Amino acid sequence: MNIRLFTLPLLLVGLLPALGWAQSAAGDFQPASSNLPGAEYPKIAPNSRVSVRLKAPEATKVQVQGGDGLQKDPLDLVKDAEGNWTGTMPSAGPGFHYYWFIVDGVRVNDPGSDAYFGYGRPTSGIEIPTPNEDFHQLKTVPHGSVREHWYQSSITSKWRRAFVYTPPGYDENPKKQYPILYLLHGAGENERGWSLQGHMSAILDNLIAEKKATPMLVVMDNGYALVPNEAPANTPGDMVKRAATLEQVYLREIIPTMETAYRTLPGRENRAMAGLSMGGLQTMLIGMKHVDMFSHYGFFSGAIFGDMLADPKTAFNGVFADAKAFNNKVRVLWFSAGSEEKRFVEMAADARKKLGDLGIKSTYYESPGTYHEWHTWRRCLHEFAPLLFK
Amino acid sequence: MNIRLFTLPLLLVGLLPALGWAQSAAGDFQPASSNLPGAEYPKIAPNSRVSVRLKAPEATKVQVQGGDGLQKDPLDLVKDAEGNWTGTMPSAGPGFHYYWFIVDGVRVNDPGSDAYFGYGRPTSGIEIPTPNEDFHQLKTVPHGSVREHWYQSSITSKWRRAFVYTPPGYDENPKKQYPILYLLHGAGENERGWSLQGHMSAILDNLIAEKKATPMLVVMDNGYALVPNEAPANTPGDMVKRAATLEQVYLREIIPTMETAYRTLPGRENRAMAGLSMGGLQTMLIGMKHVDMFSHYGFFSGAIFGDMLADPKTAFNGVFADAKAFNNKVRVLWFSAGSEEKRFVEMAADARKKLGDLGIKSTYYESPGTYHEWHTWRRCLHEFAPLLFK
Repeated sequence: MNIRLFTLPLLLVGLLPALGWAQSAAGDFQPASSNLPGAEYPKIAPNSRVSVRLKAPEATKVQVQGGDGLQKDPLDLVKDAEGNWTGTMPSAGPGFHYYWFIVDGVRVNDPGSDAYFGYGRPTSGIEIPTPNEDFHQLKTVPHGSVREHWYQSSITSKWRRAFVYTPPGYDENPKKQYPILYLLHGAGENERGWSLQGHMSAILDNLIAEKKATPMLVVMDNGYALVPNEAPANTPGDMVKRAATLEQVYLREIIPTMETAYRTLPGRENRAMAGLSMGGLQTMLIGMKHVDMFSHYGFFSGAIFGDMLADPKTAFNGVFADAKAFNNKVRVLWFSAGSEEKRFVEMAADARKKLGDLGIKSTYYESPGTYHEWHTWRRCLHEFAPLLFK
Repeated sequence: MNIRLFTLPLLLVGLLPALGWAQSAAGDFQPASSNLPGAEYPKIAPNSRVSVRLKAPEATKVQVQGGDGLQKDPLDLVKDAEGNWTGTMPSAGPGFHYYWFIVDGVRVNDPGSDAYFGYGRPTSGIEIPTPNEDFHQLKTVPHGSVREHWYQSSITSKWRRAFVYTPPGYDENPKKQYPILYLLHGAGENERGWSLQGHMSAILDNLIAEKKATPMLVVMDNGYALVPNEAPANTPGDMVKRAATLEQVYLREIIPTMETAYRTLPGRENRAMAGLSMGGLQTMLIGMKHVDMFSHYGFFSGAIFGDMLADPKTAFNGVFADAKAFNNKVRVLWFSAGSEEKRFVEMAADARKKLGDLGIKSTYYESPGTYHEWHTWRRCLHEFAPLLFK
């Protein structure tokens, strides 16, 4: 008989040594707020430097690298007598940053941090403090809830998942109808990003409690959609082409599913779309073809590639050709970027200039001191949401 | 001016090579259903062998290891000319298994799989097919939803998060009240486990559609609770002590919060508690002290340590001393284990014998051919839920 004895103590307590519990913080570095319970590292200094540590006695080379704004080029770590590799990354912008170790050439998550879907896989993330800002923190105000919503997609032949925010009061007012925002994530991420690293529900709860935002539904679906045997996008050009599938999924599946399942106010006046980076590109590609369906648009660090608006007058079936009609119809056309992500600042400026030359009205917000990362997009949502459905 | 150019193509398409897209499957091995989109590896053969691959040209040693039922001891992988390390793990039991690579001594997740919270950190998981079973799969039946629910805990001085399943019809019947099941995860896991790797909502949706289970609310909260400065559990003995804090969190925070926020039927007859492994231990420690509050109990592979019932007659304030009164009051006392996790089979048998000797009635279910892993607990939920609130 094949008796496989299960090592109960391993399951029960095997996790603790990995978390480095009980070691004290050194100097002015403190464990990040995003650390897993009990994890001493990563640690952050008041000037936003980040100290990391990984135990790897047998490795010959360990580096650390991060997303935009945090350690763009890999930083070599130094090994101590106990086999811990340590190093300190220079001051990074505030906000949420993906990062990872590279152990003998292999990308490795930090056992001290949680993982967030980014770069096409679960990736470690760290929260760098944002002094004097708490608009994105949980507070003692009425909370909406974020619901996991599975639905069958016949276009992709898959089950797809959305997360749906219902505002405070949704359950208590069973006849009330709400406007709806479709909120899109970035490339390499997934439908969980906005509610997890984006703090979407805390931002809306706080705005609604302050009476700055209209209570609304927010649908956060997955930004990838392929018909069976369609190859995924390998280039930005492909990504534009693949948006045609996502467009069909929105028109024929996501919107009808959500607006049946949740109590929505009817009509384009009550429908908005916004997205970050690739999601901004998709908001342009899908939204501008359907101004009959949406009235408010947000492009958060939108990847608005130049050729998309190469001839703005004929782009998107000529929707911009009659500026007066467009301006009357589209109530919010909102661009934004973090001040430190120059390429996206430039793309927004370029798009706004091309549209402005035709007489199309738009607005722009720049998040001070932030990069191509989630704190930029949290601030974007915080600025954008109060403009909706007014 | 510090212009940091952001590498857009990296963000947009940098994820694709890592996923090994476009390479064809070899032999009878097929990509696992749990793989990330486009990932070729891990692959599974019809006899449940698992083939893995990791690109690590600079590493000197790469191994693979898994949770109970899958590659208990690390398996050395072999490097090919392209720097890919490959190997095949022997036949594993069906179901959901945690696993990881060890690259030069460092535990590394598989870039081809999603990560699930286990062993105190995000850990790769693979789904091994369970032929002729689909009770845990999404089907075209009415779906409930799983809601993320944050609340402030004054006992722990933290914000805590629960996931709450509301059954199909919850929104459409705004006056209907429901019974409630508190469902606990295992050690090293978190509140997301039951709805993610546990497929909790699909199991309940399917049972409710077949009219085998009463529509109910299910609360999945976090099984760890410490008062400020309380050290986490280092031993099973500590874990028993720490349950006293969790007990207070259940009594004073979780239950009042959930039964205010959701429409629950009143009274102990409409309240059940069940948990897996450490969650079974907690169900015993908390639940048996409060039979005035719960009427149905489930111990799924429960970590029912022997000394807890060393003197069953006096244990838990003597709740078992009057067997007739106990049997009249407690409607379901349900133990279970996977047939291949012998230690848990033995703990369940030992507990049932000690209670049975006092005249306490209980029932037992054994999941055929499964280990200490989530398919055992999915089957447990599938067997247990139909017994509740009848």
